[in-house]
Amino acid sequence: MGKQKIFMDKLAQTFQIRNLLLRQAMAECLGTLILVMFGCGAVAQLVLSGGSHGMFLTVNFAFGFAATLGILVCGQVSGGHLNPAVTFALCLLGRDRWRKFPVYFVFQTLGAFLGSGIIFGLYYDALLNYAGELIVTGPNATAGIFATYPGKHLTLVNGFFDQTIGTAALIVCILAIVDPHNNPIPQGLEAFTVGFVVLVIGLSMGFNSGYAVNPARDLGPRLFTALAGWGTEVFTANKCWFLVPIFAPFLGAIIGVVVYQLMVGFHQEGEVRDRKSQDERVKLTNINSKDALKEEML
Amino acid sequence: MGKQKIFMDKLAQTFQIRNLLLRQAMAECLGTLILVMFGCGAVAQLVLSGGSHGMFLTVNFAFGFAATLGILVCGQVSGGHLNPAVTFALCLLGRDRWRKFPVYFVFQTLGAFLGSGIIFGLYYDALLNYAGELIVTGPNATAGIFATYPGKHLTLVNGFFDQTIGTAALIVCILAIVDPHNNPIPQGLEAFTVGFVVLVIGLSMGFNSGYAVNPARDLGPRLFTALAGWGTEVFTANKCWFLVPIFAPFLGAIIGVVVYQLMVGFHQEGEVRDRKSQDERVKLTNINSKDALKEEML
Amino acid sequence: MGKQKIFMDKLAQTFQIRNLLLRQAMAECLGTLILVMFGCGAVAQLVLSGGSHGMFLTVNFAFGFAATLGILVCGQVSGGHLNPAVTFALCLLGRDRWRKFPVYFVFQTLGAFLGSGIIFGLYYDALLNYAGELIVTGPNATAGIFATYPGKHLTLVNGFFDQTIGTAALIVCILAIVDPHNNPIPQGLEAFTVGFVVLVIGLSMGFNSGYAVNPARDLGPRLFTALAGWGTEVFTANKCWFLVPIFAPFLGAIIGVVVYQLMVGFHQEGEVRDRKSQDERVKLTNINSKDALKEEML
Amino acid sequence: MGKQKIFMDKLAQTFQIRNLLLRQAMAECLGTLILVMFGCGAVAQLVLSGGSHGMFLTVNFAFGFAATLGILVCGQVSGGHLNPAVTFALCLLGRDRWRKFPVYFVFQTLGAFLGSGIIFGLYYDALLNYAGELIVTGPNATAGIFATYPGKHLTLVNGFFDQTIGTAALIVCILAIVDPHNNPIPQGLEAFTVGFVVLVIGLSMGFNSGYAVNPARDLGPRLFTALAGWGTEVFTANKCWFLVPIFAPFLGAIIGVVVYQLMVGFHQEGEVRDRKSQDERVKLTNINSKDALKEEML
Repeated sequence: MGKQKIFMDKLAQTFQIRNLLLRQAMAECLGTLILVMFGCGAVAQLVLSGGSHGMFLTVNFAFGFAATLGILVCGQVSGGHLNPAVTFALCLLGRDRWRKFPVYFVFQTLGAFLGSGIIFGLYYDALLNYAGELIVTGPNATAGIFATYPGKHLTLVNGFFDQTIGTAALIVCILAIVDPHNNPIPQGLEAFTVGFVVLVIGLSMGFNSGYAVNPARDLGPRLFTALAGWGTEVFTANKCWFLVPIFAPFLGAIIGVVVYQLMVGFHQEGEVRDRKSQDERVKLTNINSKDALKEEML
Repeated sequence: MGKQKIFMDKLAQTFQIRNLLLRQAMAECLGTLILVMFGCGAVAQLVLSGGSHGMFLTVNFAFGFAATLGILVCGQVSGGHLNPAVTFALCLLGRDRWRKFPVYFVFQTLGAFLGSGIIFGLYYDALLNYAGELIVTGPNATAGIFATYPGKHLTLVNGFFDQTIGTAALIVCILAIVDPHNNPIPQGLEAFTVGFVVLVIGLSMGFNSGYAVNPARDLGPRLFTALAGWGTEVFTANKCWFLVPIFAPFLGAIIGVVVYQLMVGFHQEGEVRDRKSQDERVKLTNINSKDALKEEML
Repeated sequence: MGKQKIFMDKLAQTFQIRNLLLRQAMAECLGTLILVMFGCGAVAQLVLSGGSHGMFLTVNFAFGFAATLGILVCGQVSGGHLNPAVTFALCLLGRDRWRKFPVYFVFQTLGAFLGSGIIFGLYYDALLNYAGELIVTGPNATAGIFATYPGKHLTLVNGFFDQTIGTAALIVCILAIVDPHNNPIPQGLEAFTVGFVVLVIGLSMGFNSGYAVNPARDLGPRLFTALAGWGTEVFTANKCWFLVPIFAPFLGAIIGVVVYQLMVGFHQEGEVRDRKSQDERVKLTNINSKDALKEEML
Repeated sequence: MGKQKIFMDKLAQTFQIRNLLLRQAMAECLGTLILVMFGCGAVAQLVLSGGSHGMFLTVNFAFGFAATLGILVCGQVSGGHLNPAVTFALCLLGRDRWRKFPVYFVFQTLGAFLGSGIIFGLYYDALLNYAGELIVTGPNATAGIFATYPGKHLTLVNGFFDQTIGTAALIVCILAIVDPHNNPIPQGLEAFTVGFVVLVIGLSMGFNSGYAVNPARDLGPRLFTALAGWGTEVFTANKCWFLVPIFAPFLGAIIGVVVYQLMVGFHQEGEVRDRKSQDERVKLTNINSKDALKEEML
């Protein structure tokens, strides 16, 4: 094992990238790839099997747990956003730098593009077998496996509201989960909790247009389908629907941040700040080594 | 990031509410909003899609995990009751003050009202498309998306028993989960466990009338539907059924408290009290710094 | 809150039972009640709704998570066996005293009896509405909601094998979960893990006869149905099938204990024993306060 | 309890195996037995019940949670690979010795063989009742309960790609989960997380050929079916398909290792190495007992 270990260490040193932002961007790319590969894979399984190997619930599970796994893969490096709307919300709150936003957006979209490409390859035979050609709309459409398209009943205005509310709900829950002053989730379980958020959004807000609530998850696969043979109709279909899942989530992120901060966040932060300044006064008069040790450890 | 941080801190200080009860009430409101938004959203998805995007199981999952997320959002601030029957049970046990009860009840109902309003907006097109109008009873009814209505087979007496038992089961499980002297659940996982309780109640007690087991979750959306176009029939339908999910849960809470305390709670508390008084006697004769440190840390 | 607290403390002292075995028996009774109430409730929901409010998967989920909740409610007091076969296995291994076994068996069966009684009351209207009368066998049978009956394809021999293997699988997994020398599960999550075991057994071994794998869970509800109107046919049906889920699980428990101990348990225990005796020799020569403190804390 | 304890301890010492590799091989055998018993059991339940007691989702759940339970049973002893492709990946990375690989492969295959044998016995009546004889292909085929066979639409090339990608996805996620420098999952929850990975792969990559992604899980049961009465057709069917799930997973393991290491792993390791060498320099100049104690404990 000794020689191989040394060889692996050498490899590691050769390929190690020391630029933090690039490393984070690559991790986001892999995480979003996993999200889209598993998520769109489940849609493909549902559509191409004609319902024998899936149903809408399996798609909800797949996207939820795919988010969990994507976050587990890249979370330590990049924070595990997997979603430009999440990056946007954290930048708004001053928890991440704005210059991260465009870089993450590009690499998240790239990851989603690659993830849908893998599913295209995996189900290539099944896709051809399904309708003989690659169709964007109608009963034999397969473009909906990769990007989202609105239901027949949906107007653009209601669709925009749908994506905005869905993203706002996502952001409120994520902010509660990552807020260090709120309900402490055991470390390492944040990824699972976010997965449950995505699952629940799919269970309750998925009927209108398939709950993208993520510009990268929708744009990346749409770009892929445009190049892979479905053509530019993926952009023009349904009155340029593709613009909705790109822009509405950012409005939703703003609403989510405002709602969470006004209803819970600001008060919790303030509470902690108040307590801290009080504690400091107390500590100045009452310090002993045991107490300090305990406080630091807990 | 410096400037934005300062700006956010200023905002936080401007909007910070220092009145604890008001803060708690707002948090309960947001938590219950989340519960009802996701829960009723799943019912809407099931009904409006005609079963293609949901089934009774997805509604069970949605209400269960929505309870988890609602508790995670507000639990640290307000305890995450989301349910006047839970507040009532904790007041009965002397763990919360009675004056909290009416305030929580009002804000939980308000949250449920707002949550159903969001779902109404989200599925506005789909609601109109479904039956053309807003109907309370019959095959095209949509009022059941928001509030609960009894099944055809159910008498009022059996319905009252159903809601009482359902709430009693909920309370027994919640008391076991939050009892510090009983099975210790890792901190932060209580919310998940309560979500599983709600899920299981839906899986096994959902056929009679849709397992409200929560006065606020039923009354808030019912008020909303009355105002949004379904009219006063939502109150008069099924021999004023709406009174059952308001009153039966409180009786259920009393039964749940009595059963849990008589079968488990009192004995565990007593056990701990007995052991504590014994420990104190021991400690007086055998104190050394290492032991004391260890005990405090564990 | 002061007065109420004092009142509750007085109540607690009045009703406190100090006999440990009686307390444990009552806790087991409540835990098994919860298991059967939720589990059989899910079967009732599936059968009585004609499949609109449930499917076999929901029954699997309900029994799994009901086991989790039952264990959470009583685990700290009684160990949360909920199943005489589990008690039997732990007695075999010398981890519980044999005199516990008959007491637990009786109270577990009593809990299952009461749990099925609650479901009978909860779905009384629905039961009468379903077939007009209480039938044990045939297409409109409702006895299968409470106790298990073999599928048409099943012979008694295969059924005995089915229950034996199912229980053996349950015991192997439970022993791995509670083995302190094996994979350490975070404290408080054992209940969830056992729930998953029950879920998986239902997913994979439920087709033959409905996976009782628990003498109390089957006998208690069967006694209830005999008294509640289904009559003695519940015992005589299918060539006295009722004996199989009473006796086969104990054989399964023996097999489970032997398999786990021979394949994993004995070696892990030995390993720990070997290491301990080595450690002790080391410690004798190398003791300093920091090491000792650390060891005790971890 | 004293006598029995002594008896059990004697038994333990009699049967204790001190050869580590043999102990690990036996644990892997039991773990893979559990994986295949529950997993193939769920397929059997789905197929033999004609869909009344299962669907593809229940198979996904069963394989996922069966992986979790298999890992929990053997993880502490053998690492809980349950899959030669996982062993291969860890050997590639220098985390396990190459001589483990053939031993694990054989015992994992043996476990899978035994697991499918148990399911064969458990559903013996149901198997005979289903088609009257044991058939490998066609509408009444039952060989697919045990080993995987490709869908009608699948070419060998696409099938090879399918198994390669599926295993690569599995390995990337597993490496992220067990990477000590990446997202720390609470100890004991790795098994659950791996279970979710297997679940998600089934939800999204199961339509082509039933997601073996594990040479032992496929070869063991295939050998069993060949011996149990299905005959050698299980090897010759579909142009010797059986070779694909044996060889493709190893290619997938290589790809998974390369992708994870290049995108995340190498950089995290390097980061930790860089920080460590820096820390050491700092420590040399600033050592005090409290810091050292804290560092060791955290």
